[in-house]
Amino acid sequence: MRRLPISDLPELANELRRFIVDTLATHPGHLASSLGTVELCIALHYVFNTPDDKIVFDVGHQAYAHKILTGRRDLFSTIRTYGGISGFPRMDESPYDAFGTGHSSTSISAALGMATASKLQGNTYRQHIAVIGDGAMTGGEAFEALNNAGVSKANMLVILNDNGISIDKAVGGLSNYLVDITASPKYNRIKEQVWRRTGGDNGPSRGHNFISKTLSAFKSSLLDSANLFESLGFRYFGPVDGHDVGRLVDVLSQLRNIGGPKLLHIITTKGKGMPEAERNPVTYHAPGLYDVETGLQLKGDTSNQPLKYQDVFGHTIIELAEKNPKIVGITPAMPTGCSLTMMMEQMPDRAFDVGIAEQHAVTFAAGLAAQGMIPFCNIYSSFMQRAYDQIIHDVALQQLPVVICLDRAGLVGDDGPTHHGAFDIAALRPIPNLTICAPMDEHELRNMMFTAQQDDMGAFVIRYPRGLSVHPDWRNAMEPIPLGKGRCLTEGEHVAILTIGHVGNEAVKAVHDLAAEGIHVGHYDMRFAKPLDFGLLARLVLDYDDIITVEDGCLQGGFGSAVVEALHGSFEGRIARLGIPDSFVKHGPVARLMADCGFDSEAIKRTVRMLL
Amino acid sequence: MRRLPISDLPELANELRRFIVDTLATHPGHLASSLGTVELCIALHYVFNTPDDKIVFDVGHQAYAHKILTGRRDLFSTIRTYGGISGFPRMDESPYDAFGTGHSSTSISAALGMATASKLQGNTYRQHIAVIGDGAMTGGEAFEALNNAGVSKANMLVILNDNGISIDKAVGGLSNYLVDITASPKYNRIKEQVWRRTGGDNGPSRGHNFISKTLSAFKSSLLDSANLFESLGFRYFGPVDGHDVGRLVDVLSQLRNIGGPKLLHIITTKGKGMPEAERNPVTYHAPGLYDVETGLQLKGDTSNQPLKYQDVFGHTIIELAEKNPKIVGITPAMPTGCSLTMMMEQMPDRAFDVGIAEQHAVTFAAGLAAQGMIPFCNIYSSFMQRAYDQIIHDVALQQLPVVICLDRAGLVGDDGPTHHGAFDIAALRPIPNLTICAPMDEHELRNMMFTAQQDDMGAFVIRYPRGLSVHPDWRNAMEPIPLGKGRCLTEGEHVAILTIGHVGNEAVKAVHDLAAEGIHVGHYDMRFAKPLDFGLLARLVLDYDDIITVEDGCLQGGFGSAVVEALHGSFEGRIARLGIPDSFVKHGPVARLMADCGFDSEAIKRTVRMLL
Repeated sequence: MRRLPISDLPELANELRRFIVDTLATHPGHLASSLGTVELCIALHYVFNTPDDKIVFDVGHQAYAHKILTGRRDLFSTIRTYGGISGFPRMDESPYDAFGTGHSSTSISAALGMATASKLQGNTYRQHIAVIGDGAMTGGEAFEALNNAGVSKANMLVILNDNGISIDKAVGGLSNYLVDITASPKYNRIKEQVWRRTGGDNGPSRGHNFISKTLSAFKSSLLDSANLFESLGFRYFGPVDGHDVGRLVDVLSQLRNIGGPKLLHIITTKGKGMPEAERNPVTYHAPGLYDVETGLQLKGDTSNQPLKYQDVFGHTIIELAEKNPKIVGITPAMPTGCSLTMMMEQMPDRAFDVGIAEQHAVTFAAGLAAQGMIPFCNIYSSFMQRAYDQIIHDVALQQLPVVICLDRAGLVGDDGPTHHGAFDIAALRPIPNLTICAPMDEHELRNMMFTAQQDDMGAFVIRYPRGLSVHPDWRNAMEPIPLGKGRCLTEGEHVAILTIGHVGNEAVKAVHDLAAEGIHVGHYDMRFAKPLDFGLLARLVLDYDDIITVEDGCLQGGFGSAVVEALHGSFEGRIARLGIPDSFVKHGPVARLMADCGFDSEAIKRTVRMLL
Repeated sequence: MRRLPISDLPELANELRRFIVDTLATHPGHLASSLGTVELCIALHYVFNTPDDKIVFDVGHQAYAHKILTGRRDLFSTIRTYGGISGFPRMDESPYDAFGTGHSSTSISAALGMATASKLQGNTYRQHIAVIGDGAMTGGEAFEALNNAGVSKANMLVILNDNGISIDKAVGGLSNYLVDITASPKYNRIKEQVWRRTGGDNGPSRGHNFISKTLSAFKSSLLDSANLFESLGFRYFGPVDGHDVGRLVDVLSQLRNIGGPKLLHIITTKGKGMPEAERNPVTYHAPGLYDVETGLQLKGDTSNQPLKYQDVFGHTIIELAEKNPKIVGITPAMPTGCSLTMMMEQMPDRAFDVGIAEQHAVTFAAGLAAQGMIPFCNIYSSFMQRAYDQIIHDVALQQLPVVICLDRAGLVGDDGPTHHGAFDIAALRPIPNLTICAPMDEHELRNMMFTAQQDDMGAFVIRYPRGLSVHPDWRNAMEPIPLGKGRCLTEGEHVAILTIGHVGNEAVKAVHDLAAEGIHVGHYDMRFAKPLDFGLLARLVLDYDDIITVEDGCLQGGFGSAVVEALHGSFEGRIARLGIPDSFVKHGPVARLMADCGFDSEAIKRTVRMLL
């Protein structure tokens, strides 16, 4: 590609875009963000000496063009499929994937680390580039990294890919600021002058000095620091049209010769080149199957399907909030993903999208709770890992009534290891003052939400999976669940299966199948990982020979571990623990991954037979 | 106090400062930061209607004057002592402590939560104030909160207490920026004009409108956003001399009548009023005992004491780095606390203080490791909770050779529940690809550090406590420890005591005492929580009737839990797990807290006798 004349690059961009649109029509993936970065990916690989120069794509779902350009064109249709390439950059997939991503706001830190290493290794020429969206820039870690990088002499370039949107619309002061700065004629005029004069200067060190002087004069004529990024010690360039590939090549070639921390602000359109996606970037973030000609989504008939858990949450929080004025809803930048959108529309004063900011989301919730509110803070399980300290320090220690709803708990499927919600039970169970529960179906979810919002319930965690719930009708008359109490689903003999959460439905299948063979085992939906139902356990110890625990989460320290902690010394039978073993689970269909991990209904049946 | 004339406030400040200096001379605490905020605390309580108005002190160790002014003068000499008042604000200690703190950078989030609650509750008059240092402002959560608050209409005031220092000198772009802004004559002149004109206007809504217009004109004359905080949607006021109490009262009274998010930048001197502390604010952050007249520290004779673990770390990383050019050191703003200061002095290019930024510290380390370095990232155990996701997502998933040294693991004593390192083993043990170990003494610490920096060791966690190590001479010839292998310290019969880390010395005492009674139990230093030494366990199961596990960490999911997970089904004896029970541990002397939790040598002896 680097041998092409620059004038051929727009055509290459068209081809790439077409290829992405054609492929994803039948092989679902992250469409809109990748369409927005086609020209950027081309320009980066055209200008920089990758893989020796390092590019870190923040979050990484915008890197499809990068993957195609770096030897994975033939594999591209396997993206996000079992055994196929990942939807995110992964170091073990290609030397061009300089650093694996998936969660937001890590790229500047990683690129600064690499740049620092290169400097220590005596390599002053290698470039280190972080490509980060305006949404990801709101994450605290990005700011921590800017603050640190701004005073370093490290050779790094941050490319702020500004499309005004993350998965949902970007929110917050930074977002407004980027609109302001982009629209400011005076600012742009001055910047353009600086830029043009720099463009005439080709030597790296002369260019460097010239820019230093110009910017310095520019800054002192306006203020000590002319913009937010310059405040932190970065040289700011832009904004530049991120779909003008020739211009990008030009700008990046110039920046390549300037040392120290630099930030290039580019403006892109999410979904660029596909009218439907440009119009509806939220829907087309990951649209599933669509018609490649019209761009219209192909939706299967869902009329007979149960509702998604996330939608049950979305409806139920409104239903509860209508009766309980203390309830508010919070999401860190996932309103569509967790269906808080409904409440944001119906009760805009009481539902908050706080940006990609899990830490802030939890402490903000704690502040609300300290002042008498009952906040439901909805965070994907794997993103909750970002707020672990806040759950301990701000919520649990102060016994504040924050309801933490962990969507996407357990295996999530195609997004893979960065997104599986494997660790929540094990990580949260050690925290004092927390109640931790998981519903086996949507009626239980509603009952748990109802329970959590009652007075004096303290800090409450409800974890539930990605995907569909269970029943044809999700509506039930909500009723409270006694704290820390499990329930018997099937009485049986010899073996008791103890489950927590939606995975209990695998046990239901197993129990049903085994009954057909004449094997009648017991099944108990424990509901609570904390507090455990010790009363129920005490009875089971007497009634059964052996116990199987099943959880959609890691085995080390998880629900089964809690059962073993409780029973060792008082139960002489065997306890077989099924769940996610001690390794990171790859991407693929949830059913397949469950089978691999060994906690689907087949695995449960095998375990029962082994114990008998 | 609110009835005093303003002219009496400077004298009150002198008295308060004297009282703090006198008390802390014999009752050690956080001296220098509290001396810096005396005038601010007076002015806040003078102007605002506390406790109805809410003040959140970020970190909280600067709030001593606040505690004394709000009914805790008589209790002040009990600060940080067992059963006495806490060194940090705590909601359960006083209604004036609006929100508990201890870790950094939470105050803006909490205050925004409270302000949002007040708005929803129809209270438009209540004020919500976050007092945050320039160091804490570098923490990512503070930025997340600023970004969110900047677009809210919430009634909140952020007071940026800028003293150029956190515990160590503040670092990073923000710190430089604050120096620039403070020193800029043009900026200050314009601000002063705005301020004076506002001061002449008394009505809240008129003042509000006037300021809006003035600032708006001001901004457009310079740039869209005149400074970093205004970029994010805050109204910026200052800088103001934070030791001029009359001026502070004046400014705060004005700000009280202005709605929306505001930031007041005050300049203070850490250690103000005590010459020794002003000269050495790092030393006098928490100086221990000192002579009240001279201010000089009273140091006991430490010549016969073992070195602190942190100093062993500090010496050893240099010793290793001298031989292994891949090694670098990283600390998020705790260079003195973890003794990385030594390496920063001797190898300034290879040791990094990245600011209060645990998330960034870990991903930065991962970036360095991705480029071939072996970073030692030293973080206090309880602050590691901030970087939990980064350890999973950036380090362990990518199997990068980052060595995470967790100082202050286990009970820390006087700082109390926010600072105890109770959760690290339980939180980290579920993470695949991590090695987790803990040294029983400083020679083991050195050997573990030596082991970790060898090639192909992957991600490595070493946890060790606050305080003194064990031997008169910390130097040993370092040698590698076989991965996942424990060691026998005493062979015995009937009962095997399995310990991990420094708490093993309690077991040594217990074994010694019991031997004098003719009871000969075995003692095994397991060293590794992950991977467990299954080979050793298999032998112990055969040789002993019962097992006791001892750890300086939480019982749920911790080291003992790992032993129970491993042995249930193959060991019919009892397993007694000693460690921190399922509640937050208060502050007090470590020995006393260990006794309360039941894992000191006395508790071990009791448990042995019970099992026999």
